[in-house]
Amino acid sequence: MIFDELQRAIIAKQNPTCVGLDTALEYLPEGMAAGKSFNDAAEAIFGFNKNVIDATFDIVPSVKVQIAYYEQYGYFGLRAFYDTLRYAKSKGLIVIADAKRNDIGATASRYAAAFLDEKDAFESDILTVNGYLGSDGIVPFTEKCKANGKGIFVLVKTSNPSSGELQNLKLEDGRTVYECMGDMVEAWGEGTCGAYGYSCVGAVVGATYPEEAKVLRTRMKNTFFLVPGYGAQGANAEMLKNCFKADGTGAVVNNSRGVLCAYKKRGGDYAEAARAACLDMKADLLNTLGEICAK
Amino acid sequence: MIFDELQRAIIAKQNPTCVGLDTALEYLPEGMAAGKSFNDAAEAIFGFNKNVIDATFDIVPSVKVQIAYYEQYGYFGLRAFYDTLRYAKSKGLIVIADAKRNDIGATASRYAAAFLDEKDAFESDILTVNGYLGSDGIVPFTEKCKANGKGIFVLVKTSNPSSGELQNLKLEDGRTVYECMGDMVEAWGEGTCGAYGYSCVGAVVGATYPEEAKVLRTRMKNTFFLVPGYGAQGANAEMLKNCFKADGTGAVVNNSRGVLCAYKKRGGDYAEAARAACLDMKADLLNTLGEICAK
Repeated sequence: MIFDELQRAIIAKQNPTCVGLDTALEYLPEGMAAGKSFNDAAEAIFGFNKNVIDATFDIVPSVKVQIAYYEQYGYFGLRAFYDTLRYAKSKGLIVIADAKRNDIGATASRYAAAFLDEKDAFESDILTVNGYLGSDGIVPFTEKCKANGKGIFVLVKTSNPSSGELQNLKLEDGRTVYECMGDMVEAWGEGTCGAYGYSCVGAVVGATYPEEAKVLRTRMKNTFFLVPGYGAQGANAEMLKNCFKADGTGAVVNNSRGVLCAYKKRGGDYAEAARAACLDMKADLLNTLGEICAK
Repeated sequence: MIFDELQRAIIAKQNPTCVGLDTALEYLPEGMAAGKSFNDAAEAIFGFNKNVIDATFDIVPSVKVQIAYYEQYGYFGLRAFYDTLRYAKSKGLIVIADAKRNDIGATASRYAAAFLDEKDAFESDILTVNGYLGSDGIVPFTEKCKANGKGIFVLVKTSNPSSGELQNLKLEDGRTVYECMGDMVEAWGEGTCGAYGYSCVGAVVGATYPEEAKVLRTRMKNTFFLVPGYGAQGANAEMLKNCFKADGTGAVVNNSRGVLCAYKKRGGDYAEAARAACLDMKADLLNTLGEICAK
């Protein structure tokens, strides 16, 4: 049960975060991306990721790898995506593939096979998905989660400035669209809860919207949250407190640019700077959240 | 302006359809997918696609390539996806990448670079996207569309059985969620209309929901529709009539399994059977729609 594993790792490391490997070529130190072909770019990016993983795997529980940054280099980039997933896994990290996949049932089952099966296409532990199509676009994923001990994070309230345009609209029944999506997420996860009380269906809830997070944390008792928005997107520790339960469980906070580009602010080696940024983030979060200690 | 090109090709061929290259390995004739590796699967699928394209490019205006079917074979599969996009383009077809991408602005701009740029990652003419994140997840795509003469299709009312769970909910202001998304699509396309009156922002509207399609066709005057659901998903020509304007313009209808697997019903060569299925579909649609003749 992947959210048990994730929560256990978070408690052991007292660090509810994931390193976001949204690795853009321009984040790399000068000279590291010397070649110009897609293959050169992909190799440089994987090399960078590998060093960041080596420098942080003992202090962070998980990584989130955003596929868009790899797709822009074609299938060469996706080889680097694959290599990154595999390498992170080999270091004992829980691997989140951030791909926000969505489609009708027949097609969703192909995505589920690609990301949540053990046949080594782009195998990951948890996949982000978009629930706009309703249940039959989600069930193929939850079936795979149950069969293979995997998880999904469904977009509920996203961290971007315009997320409210649709998500905050009020429905006739008094709920907002994001509350409605939250209720669907809770229903999709029913009957799959692990030792910490979280189902295999998690939710993406942006740290940039603390009020909405508060509403959702109360409403979604059995749902683990993936929380983007810390750092470069503007959210601080105080803002994302609402994503956690009182015992400090139930959420993992992502930081991408703040870790990958830490060396640009701090100077020195990028891998060492990434580690220092992870330690700072951990201290910042724990200072606000207190000790993470599930009952 | 890609929707001008698409409409022009539809009129010239009197065929408002696209061949859906959602090519599953089990669709291939026995013996064609002999090997067991991802590379074998990918090569067999591209070989199949190539023959289907060769057999149909003179009678259909476009193809839609569903990326999930390729992702399940890892980066080998995505090489076949790339090869398929390129080959269809080389035969003069308009190429729709069906990937339903969606993310925050910074990430959406990477997807836009992958699919709508001329840098040869997975270049296509039109990309399907999901609008759950609102404007700043869409603008990076529309910017690329404007710069490169490309287009997108945003999910509005999807063809699957449970699409109404979210999409048909009523908002406080009286609109349904799909009408609201339709209004956003019209707004995103503003100022980009081509000769036929369609903007660079199209919409996915399932043929399986004729009543909703009727509402949307009236509401979305400047939006071109991609219409899935014909054939295997249960919609017939009469049901999808509402997706077109009175002059027969404004929509392109997809058929995947009905074309790719035609040989299983008809017998004989799969490529010849695919061509025969395309001709049957064209006749079926024109019989109901009448001649397509933009004013």
